[in-house]
Amino acid sequence: MADESLFDFLHMEIVSHVYKHSSKGEMDNKDRAVCVSVLEGMGFRVGQGLIERLTRDSPSFKDELDIMKFVCKDFWTKVFRRQVDNLRTNHQGTYVLQDNKFCLLTQLSNGKQYLDQAPKYLAFSCGVVRGGLSNLGLDSVVTAEVSTMPSCKFQVVIQKL
Amino acid sequence: MADESLFDFLHMEIVSHVYKHSSKGEMDNKDRAVCVSVLEGMGFRVGQGLIERLTRDSPSFKDELDIMKFVCKDFWTKVFRRQVDNLRTNHQGTYVLQDNKFCLLTQLSNGKQYLDQAPKYLAFSCGVVRGGLSNLGLDSVVTAEVSTMPSCKFQVVIQKL
Repeated sequence: MADESLFDFLHMEIVSHVYKHSSKGEMDNKDRAVCVSVLEGMGFRVGQGLIERLTRDSPSFKDELDIMKFVCKDFWTKVFRRQVDNLRTNHQGTYVLQDNKFCLLTQLSNGKQYLDQAPKYLAFSCGVVRGGLSNLGLDSVVTAEVSTMPSCKFQVVIQKL
Repeated sequence: MADESLFDFLHMEIVSHVYKHSSKGEMDNKDRAVCVSVLEGMGFRVGQGLIERLTRDSPSFKDELDIMKFVCKDFWTKVFRRQVDNLRTNHQGTYVLQDNKFCLLTQLSNGKQYLDQAPKYLAFSCGVVRGGLSNLGLDSVVTAEVSTMPSCKFQVVIQKL
């Protein structure tokens, strides 16, 4: 219970710290991009570390889809405390992971009021997913989109070499 | 397992972020003090949040010592994953909490080599303890001291009004 809150609280603090210290006064789009990128970078390194621990005793993966399923189940459960509700793919390297009750958004109001604040609270998580995939050998671009809180869609586009 | 690592990894990232962004080039003592204070402040707010959750269903506390015992057992277990090994007090508002295997230090080398790095990794935790106590009505000053890794002594001095 409180162990979970520990991550949530700490995450809130980081977001607010990064946003507070990255600009003096009014933020413009460039400042916002810097903040998102800082949070994404932190997430990336955390994701790399976590996946190493998690896959230590796992057999190797069959293919890309097998990796994505692992991310949606085991990885998601460890990091975000539930499984992804829905995984869709076009079988050409694009995956959409839908979490209907994303843990880092459940603390925010459910209405549309704070929808514009959502990206702040998703940048770290996008990084976590990208970091995890990266250590499993998949380069990717991960973005997140919210239409109704606390539901969230992560889009993963695998970068082919 | 990985849930625990999540906190550890995230904590490492915050420490390195705060230290990287608070100074250009060489750090002097003032820069270091700013970093410690930023981390301590983050910990303070996290501690405040956590203790509220943890004590929601607890009966109220008898006295100061009762609060300290709660911090050493329940609170410590939730945040740092073990109980404090030893609690000493002079019965005049000073408490020494010794954790022989402090979770945020176990990742560092056990020798004396990185002893000077320890304060970085303790500032947040000092804040957590101070924040928790503060929401239980005790103003305090919390400092930490390491003589051999990963053992750590937290000194709590309650501020009487």
